[in-house]
Amino acid sequence: MKLLEERIRRDGKIREGGRVLKVDSFLNHQMDIGLYNEMGKEFFRLFGADGVTKLLTIEASGIGIACVAGQYFNVPVIFAKKSKTTNIDGSVYTAQVESFTHGTSYDIMVERAFLQPGDRVLLIDDFLANGAALRGLAAIVKEAGATLVGAGICIEKAFQPGGDTLRKEGVRVESLARIKAMGEAGIEFC
Amino acid sequence: MKLLEERIRRDGKIREGGRVLKVDSFLNHQMDIGLYNEMGKEFFRLFGADGVTKLLTIEASGIGIACVAGQYFNVPVIFAKKSKTTNIDGSVYTAQVESFTHGTSYDIMVERAFLQPGDRVLLIDDFLANGAALRGLAAIVKEAGATLVGAGICIEKAFQPGGDTLRKEGVRVESLARIKAMGEAGIEFC
Repeated sequence: MKLLEERIRRDGKIREGGRVLKVDSFLNHQMDIGLYNEMGKEFFRLFGADGVTKLLTIEASGIGIACVAGQYFNVPVIFAKKSKTTNIDGSVYTAQVESFTHGTSYDIMVERAFLQPGDRVLLIDDFLANGAALRGLAAIVKEAGATLVGAGICIEKAFQPGGDTLRKEGVRVESLARIKAMGEAGIEFC
Repeated sequence: MKLLEERIRRDGKIREGGRVLKVDSFLNHQMDIGLYNEMGKEFFRLFGADGVTKLLTIEASGIGIACVAGQYFNVPVIFAKKSKTTNIDGSVYTAQVESFTHGTSYDIMVERAFLQPGDRVLLIDDFLANGAALRGLAAIVKEAGATLVGAGICIEKAFQPGGDTLRKEGVRVESLARIKAMGEAGIEFC
């Protein structure tokens, strides 16, 4: 998506020798809602014919784009909550997410009432790198017996393995901007 | 706002003897985007003439409604991040938020670059009870030297002191549903 690539080139900041891309002036701290709308439309262009009944994202930075996209799909949006406590009453689906960046793991949870076997679920998130969060969301969709339609991602770090590994496993992953490489020389998109 | 009150009556669940209102089937876990749109329009009807330049909310459950409302205001939306680490480089505004519910406190932060003295800021959040989160957001607006236009809230527990205390201090707080009392007999709105 040209608009997003141009914005990343203009306002993205590369940090830590090309390992970190800061896009917090428009994507995940301050949010450009005009851009969000264009991304939401694009997700609908890509997945609008797939009978999606729910959008599923993860707190916190996926929520905004999922809600704006939800307007085009006209379906409810669910965000998985990061949980410190293990579920004890069985009323939630849970999955463990390993954070490669921080070397830790955390649990995510979704109330069982909100995902049913008949649901066709599209995952939405702002970033895809190692794919740990997406993998956790996909596990919850599976646990619910629902159908995973695919994943709509704003920015994929294609030089990290998450996206391609998921694609090889048969998940349809559509990323609006795919970064092939980044460093002092700038950003190269796929 | 009639639509929201009716929805709370229909789908809200009162727990713990009238102290907790669960609205996670449409407001803060699963999100009804059609309802979000109507709430966003209503916030714009209330504050649209006030020259708002930024919406400010707090992660996680304020983000969705702030983003949808942001479309009507046509301004950037910022979410304050909950931070475990004290700022060390001075690049962020911070405030402490006391959680009465959990008897703990946490820090919130906003990058300095995103709030300027010329900004006119509207706070958006899903819930208002004791007002601790709003107070933290207002402190950040003040620290930035920006103007606090007011606060747009989805549900106010008006039997708790947060809203009225803020109003007495001169903050314009507009809540789309104000709960006067709730318990086994149901919910009474103001």
